[in-house]
Amino acid sequence: MHWRDAGVTGFPELRRFFTPESFALVGATADLTKFGGRALKLTQEFGYRGRLYPVNPRGGEIFGMKAYASVRDLPEAPDHVGVVVAADRVLGVLEDCAARSAKFATVLTSGFAETGTDDGIAMQARIAEFSRRSGVRVMGPNCNGFINFVDRVVFASTATVSSAPRPTGFVSIAAQSGGLGMVNAMWRAQEAGLGVNHVVTCGNDADLDILDFAHFMVDDPATRVVMLIAERIPSGAKLFALAEKAARAVKPILIVKLGRTEAGQRAAQSHTGAMTGSDVVHDAAFRQLGIIRCVDCNEMYEAAMLLGENRIARGRGASGLSISGGNVVLLTDLGAGHGIRWPEYGADTHARLAELMPSYGRVSNPADLTTAAVGSLDMYQQVLDAISEDPNVDVMIPIVTFGTRSDIEYTVAAAQRSSKPFAVLWNGGCIDHPALAPRDLVGQGVAVYRDTLECVQAVGRAMDYGAFHQQHRERQPLRRPPAADADKARTALQRFARTLTEHQSKEVLAAYGFTVTCEQLARTAVEAQTIAQTLACAVALKISSPDIAHKTQSGGVCLGLTDADSVARAFSQVTANARAHAPEARIEGVLVQEMAPPGLELMLGMIRDPVFGSVVAAGIGGIHVEVLGDVAYRVPPISRQDSHAMLEELRGYRLFEGLRGDRARDIEAAAAAIERLSWLALDLGDDIVELDINPLIVGARGAGAVVVDALIVRAEGAEGGEARPSNQQ
Amino acid sequence: MHWRDAGVTGFPELRRFFTPESFALVGATADLTKFGGRALKLTQEFGYRGRLYPVNPRGGEIFGMKAYASVRDLPEAPDHVGVVVAADRVLGVLEDCAARSAKFATVLTSGFAETGTDDGIAMQARIAEFSRRSGVRVMGPNCNGFINFVDRVVFASTATVSSAPRPTGFVSIAAQSGGLGMVNAMWRAQEAGLGVNHVVTCGNDADLDILDFAHFMVDDPATRVVMLIAERIPSGAKLFALAEKAARAVKPILIVKLGRTEAGQRAAQSHTGAMTGSDVVHDAAFRQLGIIRCVDCNEMYEAAMLLGENRIARGRGASGLSISGGNVVLLTDLGAGHGIRWPEYGADTHARLAELMPSYGRVSNPADLTTAAVGSLDMYQQVLDAISEDPNVDVMIPIVTFGTRSDIEYTVAAAQRSSKPFAVLWNGGCIDHPALAPRDLVGQGVAVYRDTLECVQAVGRAMDYGAFHQQHRERQPLRRPPAADADKARTALQRFARTLTEHQSKEVLAAYGFTVTCEQLARTAVEAQTIAQTLACAVALKISSPDIAHKTQSGGVCLGLTDADSVARAFSQVTANARAHAPEARIEGVLVQEMAPPGLELMLGMIRDPVFGSVVAAGIGGIHVEVLGDVAYRVPPISRQDSHAMLEELRGYRLFEGLRGDRARDIEAAAAAIERLSWLALDLGDDIVELDINPLIVGARGAGAVVVDALIVRAEGAEGGEARPSNQQ
Repeated sequence: MHWRDAGVTGFPELRRFFTPESFALVGATADLTKFGGRALKLTQEFGYRGRLYPVNPRGGEIFGMKAYASVRDLPEAPDHVGVVVAADRVLGVLEDCAARSAKFATVLTSGFAETGTDDGIAMQARIAEFSRRSGVRVMGPNCNGFINFVDRVVFASTATVSSAPRPTGFVSIAAQSGGLGMVNAMWRAQEAGLGVNHVVTCGNDADLDILDFAHFMVDDPATRVVMLIAERIPSGAKLFALAEKAARAVKPILIVKLGRTEAGQRAAQSHTGAMTGSDVVHDAAFRQLGIIRCVDCNEMYEAAMLLGENRIARGRGASGLSISGGNVVLLTDLGAGHGIRWPEYGADTHARLAELMPSYGRVSNPADLTTAAVGSLDMYQQVLDAISEDPNVDVMIPIVTFGTRSDIEYTVAAAQRSSKPFAVLWNGGCIDHPALAPRDLVGQGVAVYRDTLECVQAVGRAMDYGAFHQQHRERQPLRRPPAADADKARTALQRFARTLTEHQSKEVLAAYGFTVTCEQLARTAVEAQTIAQTLACAVALKISSPDIAHKTQSGGVCLGLTDADSVARAFSQVTANARAHAPEARIEGVLVQEMAPPGLELMLGMIRDPVFGSVVAAGIGGIHVEVLGDVAYRVPPISRQDSHAMLEELRGYRLFEGLRGDRARDIEAAAAAIERLSWLALDLGDDIVELDINPLIVGARGAGAVVVDALIVRAEGAEGGEARPSNQQ
Repeated sequence: MHWRDAGVTGFPELRRFFTPESFALVGATADLTKFGGRALKLTQEFGYRGRLYPVNPRGGEIFGMKAYASVRDLPEAPDHVGVVVAADRVLGVLEDCAARSAKFATVLTSGFAETGTDDGIAMQARIAEFSRRSGVRVMGPNCNGFINFVDRVVFASTATVSSAPRPTGFVSIAAQSGGLGMVNAMWRAQEAGLGVNHVVTCGNDADLDILDFAHFMVDDPATRVVMLIAERIPSGAKLFALAEKAARAVKPILIVKLGRTEAGQRAAQSHTGAMTGSDVVHDAAFRQLGIIRCVDCNEMYEAAMLLGENRIARGRGASGLSISGGNVVLLTDLGAGHGIRWPEYGADTHARLAELMPSYGRVSNPADLTTAAVGSLDMYQQVLDAISEDPNVDVMIPIVTFGTRSDIEYTVAAAQRSSKPFAVLWNGGCIDHPALAPRDLVGQGVAVYRDTLECVQAVGRAMDYGAFHQQHRERQPLRRPPAADADKARTALQRFARTLTEHQSKEVLAAYGFTVTCEQLARTAVEAQTIAQTLACAVALKISSPDIAHKTQSGGVCLGLTDADSVARAFSQVTANARAHAPEARIEGVLVQEMAPPGLELMLGMIRDPVFGSVVAAGIGGIHVEVLGDVAYRVPPISRQDSHAMLEELRGYRLFEGLRGDRARDIEAAAAAIERLSWLALDLGDDIVELDINPLIVGARGAGAVVVDALIVRAEGAEGGEARPSNQQ
């Protein structure tokens, strides 16, 4: 089922998961060399304000608290139970939780699906089944718990938190891996000066999954940016629902999705025991959803600093200033490589700058203060004010190389009062106050970067998000294109066996409103001649057999026939070739087809992705797809605007402009065909495992686009409508 | 002239520049608000051990030292004079330096070519002329001086150095920009724990240039890695000579070359007032020379940490280990994206690992210790030893997330005693010794990275350098290919006017040993028929005129003619079309040419680059070059191996394999043609501004490659040999 119909309405309510009024820890012990000891100590020392219940079969007292022999013995139904017992005891403990009406359980124990063993996989399936049956929602197994810095709740075994409180802020983090979530993302973000609110590391996602936690974070009023680290996306449909909610709330989601390379996909699979799906499809879906993909974890908190300022970049125009000319050049250079424009300043700004720096000609953007700054202590500050108020400037990038405390504090104040995103690039130290460090500024809510590349990357991402935000706000409801008759197409499809012939495939496409070549099946040479005469143009003859997929290779195609004799000869020839090529093939006849006028050949397709379901793909025919892998993907349905964006992603996009005197191509017709295909994927996707349109020939502007060849393969078991008439004879 | 002939034999001897026994500072003052005050103070406090002479027209005493009114008054000929006077006084001071036989002068003063004004450019030219005339070698103007941390000499105005000594190490830095050199590279490298030996920021390069300083650094025994930051390369020839020397000494050169984007090129030009040349050509030249290009300055010291270990990566196989499964996946994933392979461990290693972790199956690479490490304190250390001794492993990447001091110290010791490059990825902190920081390890000569991406980037670069090193060591002397007759080709070339016709261009190419199509010029239809008959194959007719460059667009080409009548008709047609298209064109006749058998069409070319001189280019014909910009470049001459590498760089390289039943192409013949072209560029490059071979048709394997069309344009003023016979009639 597709996400739009999947009824992903309810994410679980997780308030008591993160802020339990009572928390029990099963596997509690006073032995600090054990997980259960360290975890209990941490919960206690972190300042948990609810009722904390150690659970240990031996009872007694642990760290001054009464220990209970079982969850069943607790004096109340606990909101949340932490579990660190051996793998074979986990399910029993969970049954205890259900018996005592616990709301949530978090299982740190490993030894489940991640082992790749049948036993481990089966034990994990039993946890999932338990949760469905009992209503106790479970995080894990094989996870490293959660931290709520706001309410001082922790259940984890980690050296990354201590009893000294860290400031909270606007970031929350969900990861499947404990190490990546708590070290690479959380601890490092905190070290960089960012406050973190909530962190979960959810392991194998047997019941509650990373998207459930992300949903809670999007809902959390204090959280403005959500950082995800995922080895697998549990459900494309849930991701779409989550992203839609985040977009409406203007809360950017950043993601590090592992499995960019084949080696990484294999490693992720063996680590988590789960299929990870195609990376290019993930990449396309993230872009479609405004989810900002990062390569490494540090890039996420670097981008979060700027996105958390809660000001949307209105465009891609930035300005900077520096007393280091070399840094101005580097910023300009690398910024342009990340889609940053450096607009001319407006007339007012130029007038102010001319007053400030009379010996200068026109001041460039970014502004190089090399000489001007000498001898004028507040030159930097005055120029900063002048350019940051320029209406052409969407994002400010002041560069502090080695700055005075006064310049640095002025920059912070300017950033805080500005209505524009401010990315401060501070490469060096503070001249007169060496202890002052970037993290101090970050702690005041200012985005600070050490290196030019990381800075322009973050700015580029903020601009991407700004563009997505604007597009999302102005978005029209998606609408099925005219003449896309789903019922008619489905009826046509259901008449056919599993692998449709070209002619049958086109019948389905035509029913859904695609322009296909005029054609008719001929069973004799004379029929072929008659059809060719009716078509009244040059024709192609193509063998029609459900058993011959590669018509050209079997000698089953003749092109450009213009007279009756050639048609008759071609009929005999393609029939004979096909028989010689595949003596057992069932031959329905020969397709007599109008020759499409020459044009740009596109390949459109629909594939099935294990995470996102039906996905549409588009590329330019020939070597572009086959040799260069130049293909764009989208999760359907999409708008006309989306399908234009898809075409623009192709490296060969310029071919639509027409080269060397060729006329420009009908790009609108190409985009319309992709949009239509996306709706077909939505309407008939359950019944189709593969759909290829190859080629769609795109004519000159205004001349449209026509499906010249197509292949549909139905889903296993979906067939079984009427048998095809030709087989009944 | 080409670099191989350019006689770049002598780089200047700069020992007394960096370690002057006597140093005078012109513009010295006790006023610390002025450059001359701060610089003098810094030199004194930094611990200069030579004789320091303040120079100030007012004489007297400054900071306890006698001040001299002029350099002419100094008690000795100073080794080095620092100059911080106003721009209009600089040349006078330099004349004083010459009069007092100073060896070197460094001019910090700005206001020269970087202003872009005629005055500034002229003043700078006078400095260059002064240096040539007097023999006083000058750094600057518009520079920020130099620092010699080894001998404690500084002449600069910078907040990045203080009197507290920094440890020296194995890195030296040369930059044109003071800010980038001293802040982004030097100070940050030091903060990261790297020791730095020598730093120069050389500004406008009026006389001594960045490559001269780099040469000194390559020569410096203590320096093992040279870091360059360049807004422009002063001379391609010098860069080649420098790189050759560095390659022989096995001292990697790292470079941040600004001007990757057009916006960056414009900014660099306006900052330095100099042409910067084409970025793609720079990129190709760096790769050719084993110079490792980085995008931002931090990437340089990150790579330097590993390259400075002085162990060459023997291959692209790495191994890692971690107690964080997520970090193992991330490392695998991003590593593969940077060309890192993760080989299977050898049998011995597997046996050792099976003993250490009996509950595991086969341990993967990188090794995930998630569960195994629990309860065994030295598991990490034992696994580290086992895998680092594996013969399949070229580079080690242990991951410390949050480590104990013991694990971290063990890792440092393992890195120090290993014969393989060791890149330690330390994402977090130290559990039992929070003050321990990555920089402490770097200070002990160990490469430490905070983030996975920066780590695999550095490892990938070390592997690239290892591959370059091996290739350089095994390199055969470059040799002109057989039958490349430079004299014959030059004689042919000199007979022609500036723009050669296709036939003339091929005559030159044939003289140099290229296979060209059989063809002859016909002046009448009957002649054309006779020639066609002699060729005894299908022919093409092409109009031949020095005034018609685009033969096809003018209707001047007819292809695939197989009988005498068609040849005659075609002769009339192309002649008439050409006359109609360009009535004034001088028409020499019609070229009757054998039709080359179909094959893969390449475009080869020679362009002139302002920095590197003649450069050869190769791409696959059609959209690859025009739409996709898929072109590879090299600075000639190159070996056969180099030209294969050039073809392999092309995204469309797979087309050589032959698609869909096409036979594989004669890639050897294609590579040979590129190699030959590179020698032609070397031999005749001075006389040619443009050379295009389009297409070179590459046949099936063994069938060779033939030049089907070509165009040579001679250098302005180079023409004037014999007039072409056809014009004399």
